[in-house]
Amino acid sequence: MPEKLMQPEVWLPDKPEEACGVFGVYSKQADYGASLASYLGLYALQHRGQESAGIVVSDGQQLMTHKGMGLVANVFHKDILDNLQGACAIGHVRYSTTGSSLLANAQPLVARCSKGAMAVAHNGNLVNTEELRLGLENSGSVFQTTTDTEVIINLIARHSQDTLADAVGKAANQLRGSFSLVVMTKDTLIGLRDPSGFRPLCLGRLEQNEAYVIASESCAFSSIGAKFIRDIKPGEMVYMDRHGLQSYQYLSEPVRKAVCIFEYIYFARPDSAIDGLGVHQARKKMGWELAKQFTKAADVVIPVPDTGRSTAIGFAEASGIPFDIGLIKNPYVGRTFIQPTQSMRDLGVRIKLNPVESVLAGKRVVIIDDTIVRGTTSGKIIKMLREAGAKEVHMCVSAPPITHPCYYGIDTSVRKELIASTHEVEEIRQYIGADSLTYLTLAGLARAVEPLSGFCYACFNGDYPVEVPGKVARNKYLFEE
Amino acid sequence: MPEKLMQPEVWLPDKPEEACGVFGVYSKQADYGASLASYLGLYALQHRGQESAGIVVSDGQQLMTHKGMGLVANVFHKDILDNLQGACAIGHVRYSTTGSSLLANAQPLVARCSKGAMAVAHNGNLVNTEELRLGLENSGSVFQTTTDTEVIINLIARHSQDTLADAVGKAANQLRGSFSLVVMTKDTLIGLRDPSGFRPLCLGRLEQNEAYVIASESCAFSSIGAKFIRDIKPGEMVYMDRHGLQSYQYLSEPVRKAVCIFEYIYFARPDSAIDGLGVHQARKKMGWELAKQFTKAADVVIPVPDTGRSTAIGFAEASGIPFDIGLIKNPYVGRTFIQPTQSMRDLGVRIKLNPVESVLAGKRVVIIDDTIVRGTTSGKIIKMLREAGAKEVHMCVSAPPITHPCYYGIDTSVRKELIASTHEVEEIRQYIGADSLTYLTLAGLARAVEPLSGFCYACFNGDYPVEVPGKVARNKYLFEE
Amino acid sequence: MPEKLMQPEVWLPDKPEEACGVFGVYSKQADYGASLASYLGLYALQHRGQESAGIVVSDGQQLMTHKGMGLVANVFHKDILDNLQGACAIGHVRYSTTGSSLLANAQPLVARCSKGAMAVAHNGNLVNTEELRLGLENSGSVFQTTTDTEVIINLIARHSQDTLADAVGKAANQLRGSFSLVVMTKDTLIGLRDPSGFRPLCLGRLEQNEAYVIASESCAFSSIGAKFIRDIKPGEMVYMDRHGLQSYQYLSEPVRKAVCIFEYIYFARPDSAIDGLGVHQARKKMGWELAKQFTKAADVVIPVPDTGRSTAIGFAEASGIPFDIGLIKNPYVGRTFIQPTQSMRDLGVRIKLNPVESVLAGKRVVIIDDTIVRGTTSGKIIKMLREAGAKEVHMCVSAPPITHPCYYGIDTSVRKELIASTHEVEEIRQYIGADSLTYLTLAGLARAVEPLSGFCYACFNGDYPVEVPGKVARNKYLFEE
Amino acid sequence: MPEKLMQPEVWLPDKPEEACGVFGVYSKQADYGASLASYLGLYALQHRGQESAGIVVSDGQQLMTHKGMGLVANVFHKDILDNLQGACAIGHVRYSTTGSSLLANAQPLVARCSKGAMAVAHNGNLVNTEELRLGLENSGSVFQTTTDTEVIINLIARHSQDTLADAVGKAANQLRGSFSLVVMTKDTLIGLRDPSGFRPLCLGRLEQNEAYVIASESCAFSSIGAKFIRDIKPGEMVYMDRHGLQSYQYLSEPVRKAVCIFEYIYFARPDSAIDGLGVHQARKKMGWELAKQFTKAADVVIPVPDTGRSTAIGFAEASGIPFDIGLIKNPYVGRTFIQPTQSMRDLGVRIKLNPVESVLAGKRVVIIDDTIVRGTTSGKIIKMLREAGAKEVHMCVSAPPITHPCYYGIDTSVRKELIASTHEVEEIRQYIGADSLTYLTLAGLARAVEPLSGFCYACFNGDYPVEVPGKVARNKYLFEE
Repeated sequence: MPEKLMQPEVWLPDKPEEACGVFGVYSKQADYGASLASYLGLYALQHRGQESAGIVVSDGQQLMTHKGMGLVANVFHKDILDNLQGACAIGHVRYSTTGSSLLANAQPLVARCSKGAMAVAHNGNLVNTEELRLGLENSGSVFQTTTDTEVIINLIARHSQDTLADAVGKAANQLRGSFSLVVMTKDTLIGLRDPSGFRPLCLGRLEQNEAYVIASESCAFSSIGAKFIRDIKPGEMVYMDRHGLQSYQYLSEPVRKAVCIFEYIYFARPDSAIDGLGVHQARKKMGWELAKQFTKAADVVIPVPDTGRSTAIGFAEASGIPFDIGLIKNPYVGRTFIQPTQSMRDLGVRIKLNPVESVLAGKRVVIIDDTIVRGTTSGKIIKMLREAGAKEVHMCVSAPPITHPCYYGIDTSVRKELIASTHEVEEIRQYIGADSLTYLTLAGLARAVEPLSGFCYACFNGDYPVEVPGKVARNKYLFEE
Repeated sequence: MPEKLMQPEVWLPDKPEEACGVFGVYSKQADYGASLASYLGLYALQHRGQESAGIVVSDGQQLMTHKGMGLVANVFHKDILDNLQGACAIGHVRYSTTGSSLLANAQPLVARCSKGAMAVAHNGNLVNTEELRLGLENSGSVFQTTTDTEVIINLIARHSQDTLADAVGKAANQLRGSFSLVVMTKDTLIGLRDPSGFRPLCLGRLEQNEAYVIASESCAFSSIGAKFIRDIKPGEMVYMDRHGLQSYQYLSEPVRKAVCIFEYIYFARPDSAIDGLGVHQARKKMGWELAKQFTKAADVVIPVPDTGRSTAIGFAEASGIPFDIGLIKNPYVGRTFIQPTQSMRDLGVRIKLNPVESVLAGKRVVIIDDTIVRGTTSGKIIKMLREAGAKEVHMCVSAPPITHPCYYGIDTSVRKELIASTHEVEEIRQYIGADSLTYLTLAGLARAVEPLSGFCYACFNGDYPVEVPGKVARNKYLFEE
Repeated sequence: MPEKLMQPEVWLPDKPEEACGVFGVYSKQADYGASLASYLGLYALQHRGQESAGIVVSDGQQLMTHKGMGLVANVFHKDILDNLQGACAIGHVRYSTTGSSLLANAQPLVARCSKGAMAVAHNGNLVNTEELRLGLENSGSVFQTTTDTEVIINLIARHSQDTLADAVGKAANQLRGSFSLVVMTKDTLIGLRDPSGFRPLCLGRLEQNEAYVIASESCAFSSIGAKFIRDIKPGEMVYMDRHGLQSYQYLSEPVRKAVCIFEYIYFARPDSAIDGLGVHQARKKMGWELAKQFTKAADVVIPVPDTGRSTAIGFAEASGIPFDIGLIKNPYVGRTFIQPTQSMRDLGVRIKLNPVESVLAGKRVVIIDDTIVRGTTSGKIIKMLREAGAKEVHMCVSAPPITHPCYYGIDTSVRKELIASTHEVEEIRQYIGADSLTYLTLAGLARAVEPLSGFCYACFNGDYPVEVPGKVARNKYLFEE
Repeated sequence: MPEKLMQPEVWLPDKPEEACGVFGVYSKQADYGASLASYLGLYALQHRGQESAGIVVSDGQQLMTHKGMGLVANVFHKDILDNLQGACAIGHVRYSTTGSSLLANAQPLVARCSKGAMAVAHNGNLVNTEELRLGLENSGSVFQTTTDTEVIINLIARHSQDTLADAVGKAANQLRGSFSLVVMTKDTLIGLRDPSGFRPLCLGRLEQNEAYVIASESCAFSSIGAKFIRDIKPGEMVYMDRHGLQSYQYLSEPVRKAVCIFEYIYFARPDSAIDGLGVHQARKKMGWELAKQFTKAADVVIPVPDTGRSTAIGFAEASGIPFDIGLIKNPYVGRTFIQPTQSMRDLGVRIKLNPVESVLAGKRVVIIDDTIVRGTTSGKIIKMLREAGAKEVHMCVSAPPITHPCYYGIDTSVRKELIASTHEVEEIRQYIGADSLTYLTLAGLARAVEPLSGFCYACFNGDYPVEVPGKVARNKYLFEE
């Protein structure tokens, strides 16, 4: 076998980072395998980001890092974890967006500064990055990546006279946008959620290992046997060291709570609970609400796998229309798929999804999906159902029409042709070829996540909870058109 | 990037090959992209084998091959397919069994012999390989792999005076066991199913491309836009060249039909139909039959994902107990997963499967699985459900107890500790910790696949349709204990 | 790191194999590390082939193989050698020729046949491969590669009633062309040189390890601490097993001895001795002979590194003209070098060779090279020397003009535009721009290798010692033009 | 082929960087291929560093980088260079030292700061890195690597109010130790040599491409067809932009010139000239000086290849003892070589070097080497020569005894057991088993490089030209013992 070489690195301009998963664990037991725990935790959070993965571990003296492009399973193997010995660790999985697949942007970011060695992992998107970066550059800072994370670490480093907690708190006060952070030094672990609470972050406990755990979603706790304690509150910082855990409100001024509703609609895993509300349960209730809106007669309700499944079960329950499997998803179709030729595509090739004819033939079918962005995929699915014999196809969507771009971390660049921003519902129905089209109303969506409130619905109604600097907003629109 | 080197190859003793998927396409249009079609077809058959993948294409003059270890997506990329130009191709995906992951054993196998260049791909397992191989060696044959496929190609080569169809037919008459074959020369494609019909093989048509297609399962046709024509019959050979398609009964003496029932229970994709019966439909009927056997009261029925899903829907339909999602499967956990430490495992880590507490808490739960082999996984799942709050757990299995090893291609070496071969049902129930345990009866299973008959049920009742030479049988038992 | 996948394999038409190195070792001590010894031996023979490398080891029971594309250092690492346990092994390095870089063609070739498991490695080129292959195919043989080696192993396998020694001997009698072979079964090692002795093969002894060693060149013995015993004679087979070593004359009829003179001119390492004559010494004598032919006055003699060095020292000794280093070779320029653009090339880029101006400026320079094939490289070198200030450049070549293609293993496809086959010496001198051009005469060359005789000089005089079937010869010429 | 993933990155503590090669090119022709030129230039400088290679190119708007571990040939391939379009580029090759093979430390380092995007490549070693770094950290800087280069870029970034030339000059004034730098922004190329001139740096010109070139050694100019203009002077900065080239003396106070003599002894390529003196010529003169010191009778003088060759030719010339090749070096033995077992080593395996018996048998041999560090290699070589029949072995070394560690960039950590720092010459002679041992005297060495003066001889006499902070010095000794 060829000599094991580290692969080359490329420096290219980049876009801001998108949805990600963060993880952190701090144990008082020196022999606790924090890197293996992080590995298992990142596995559970893999759905939040498949572009790159990284773990930084501290043995109390120094930090050791391993990062790579691709899935957790590809980036880490046994030898690597064996070399990452320590009882405290943080990890990160990053979302894949075209053109920014750079190892240099993989997280956590590790650096040495006035606080010693420090590692930071970030889920979210700042809206004042450029402004912060220019300020730092003007007073001598140097940047090697295009990530928000490097800006954050530089802000922390500038507070060289403050304690670590104060420095992190002061830095957090300078940030605008969404940020769930984990920060680690050789002997400290910090978890921090932005004042609006855009992205989830929760706290767990591993009693047997005298360990605290922080993760983007509670499903990560199950993967290491930890118990869920509570969600980190918007504007809260939890600080863990050998003296135990302390909680701070780092916030200098109150901010409107604005949890991203899309975590419930399709980001989070159904077995996670966010701010006390189970995701599967919320989706079933979206299905109930959709069923209330739906007025047609139908024979079968089927989900677009996998995210539509919970909603479809709720819909079936509330409507009495039987639930069945009408589409099979090929679990092996991934990012690197080679596309069929146009002439093959014209023949109606069915690679990712394939209909189950016995379920569909001669039936009036309700199909449940989570969103309609450009409408092209919905159109193909409906055509496929009809070819498999469906007599009627009724599309039900578990979210209102998306009409506005997101600046807080959802990759609206792949959602750039938002069909609902320029078309009426009836036009969309015709475009996708459905017999009927039902969008969940904003009121229905709000009911589905009751008793919780304080959500960001900006993509549905343009009510942006954190002000977006004009320039970023302009660029966004520029980019959209 | 380092120079692109072909990776090394290792030669080690091997075990016979197991379940696989085969694909073949023959078009009269010289510019048809047979390799891309094979790629798409193998993608649809990926669930039948994840160890290695290979495609051989003919441009009418010569054969070109690409094979590699791993998933179709990893073995092929665009440049490779671009280099495999031709209108006729065969492909193969191979099942992963420990210790035999050898590139040398990847298929299709390509060789030059008295018939010119020839490629063969095989799904199945011969029981007289060793006997055939020794006979060939004694008259001068040389073997470079341990595969059945190489034996088959040597048998064909020995009939140097016969036509290709006759040579293949004569060779097939010498084989004992299960074999669905695709054979290709520079200008001919042959598909052939063993006389018992153990493994499926079906025929499709791409009218626009003047092409015939052969595949292990009909789901592969959807992926290239082909129409299903019919299943290849047990003992049938279909022969395609520029003159069109011809069908032969190659069989010299009649043989008992014995289609592997496990294709319906868990091998095949739910959207496939085998011998005219839809797999999803058959599984739903297994659920109906199970529901008839089930006598307890319960609040919810949940599947073990993904294979239990169809059966669970059928069970819910027939029993009136509501269907729900009680377990979430992490789709990213693959072969290369690094195991948690024992102390972590003792904490009940939930990596592949995680319960949805809101669905389970306080409920009497029916859980549907396809088989119980050793019982350890079932025990873990039931424990997990109870920890998530399930009040009762009733296990229902969509197959009778497995009491006998398989010699026709199911890898019983990973099923070597068949709990049902040495324990009563009540003992198994106690071992796995269920409140009740219901196995589908053989009669119920037979009803679920009606009106079809002629199945191999040997693993349930020891009635082996094709005689197994004593030595192989002894080895098998030796290996089992 | 990504999952370690074996890399894909490609099947393409191929050309006959070229110059290679073979190695074999047999020890009576069961714990002798034969694979490590083979690794070290192949390292010493690396100059004979850089395309692929392979080792097969026997532990007395079974054969284990590792082969790969590239240099020995890239194909093998510690873990691989650790897994290749056994006291008997053979190895092979293969020459790199464009278009035939196929793992399938890497050697040794391992197969199971009537003699049990057998491994064969071959240095040379048969002229009757196609004829032998067709005969074998007609009686049922199957071929998976395009190598001579597979033909050889099939010939051996056909003699299923004979002892191994007889079978190998009978097979060898069917071969025409050049072949130095090592053959291994689980308990036997055989070394065999063709009747003409085209390629070298020698025998060594490791007394402390009760081991015999066979290698293409004696330099391989030094690398494992073995002592040179003697060269294997043309037409001799040495057979080693637990009873010791036996020598056979396998030849059924006498054949003219025809050792390839190019082994002395540039193939072999200067520290090797072939048939009793040291290669460095022979090259120095070529320099002496050249000096006798050279009639001009000159200030300095410089070699084209690395092969011209020994000859240049001999020339300096005999002529009294001082030896110096006038050209530096960049040792890092390898096969994968990216070529400069034409406009860069026009500027006279000096990548592989760079002149040392202080040695050349104002001097009358004699430059020593081993051969002139197409003349383009010579022309560039002479231009470079003049640009560095050389007043006169006298080219001296340590071989006569090459006028005929080789059929016995030298890759004349890269030598296809043999300038000397169509041009007079004076024309060549003008073409390369030298002030004088001196080719070593055939008589001078013969004197340089005295007291040895019985060489193949076919590429200089067309006197082919082994008849070349018409078809091969025609193809060759076809290919040449 | 598997999906092309960027390989993982590891963060580990590191040692200061060692000898390297730097390259830079600036052309006014927008279509000049600066990355290909850098590739060719780095190829010529590969002997200065084999651990990693990198190129940063500017197209006038933005910088693009490619870096990787390993040789230039492995890090770059055609597609990569094609993507690095631009007329200005810098490149770097890094020396391989155990334990610090980190991609993160590969150069050039690229960052964005107050000067915009900037790339820096550094050959040398600072002695005040830690002091500078702490100062920067205390005022808020963040470090992501352990390289001197990152300190340098941060120093430049701090001068945000100055012009680029002033900022670079002010930063250079803060550095202590050795540094030959190339700095690039989107439209500027800077070359800079430290005030003592420890490491070489020279300026070339490509008239046809309106380009200036900077390189560690002049041999890099030949590889792209550029002409040597002159050496950059100690304390000089050359600044190139669209207005042409300007030279500055950036130095605020005069410093003693101290060119590293080891560049002449063994670092530099023989075809390079440094500060006007050809390296081959200097080595030949070292041979002349050694011959003057040598008083024994001998039959042949041989070099330890490759570095001893020039010196040996000089020795032969001056002494009249004939030059010959007594040792053959295997050019394929590289870094990843698997070591023979101890028992094999006891047999005297000869892997890297092998004697030519015909040259040595019965002879009194003078062997020329460049240095003796620990003496173990010398001992092995002498033993090998005696076993090959040498009657006497006289070792001549082209440098005085090394008695002091280097702080300016020579990796004395691999030279940590300096035999000459604790032993007399006679003791060393006995240890290595030579019949005589002659070290070149410091006076002789000085004569060999005449008419140049102003060298650093610290490793021979402890006279350190740039003060080494106590702590670094202590660490060094600590590390040494």
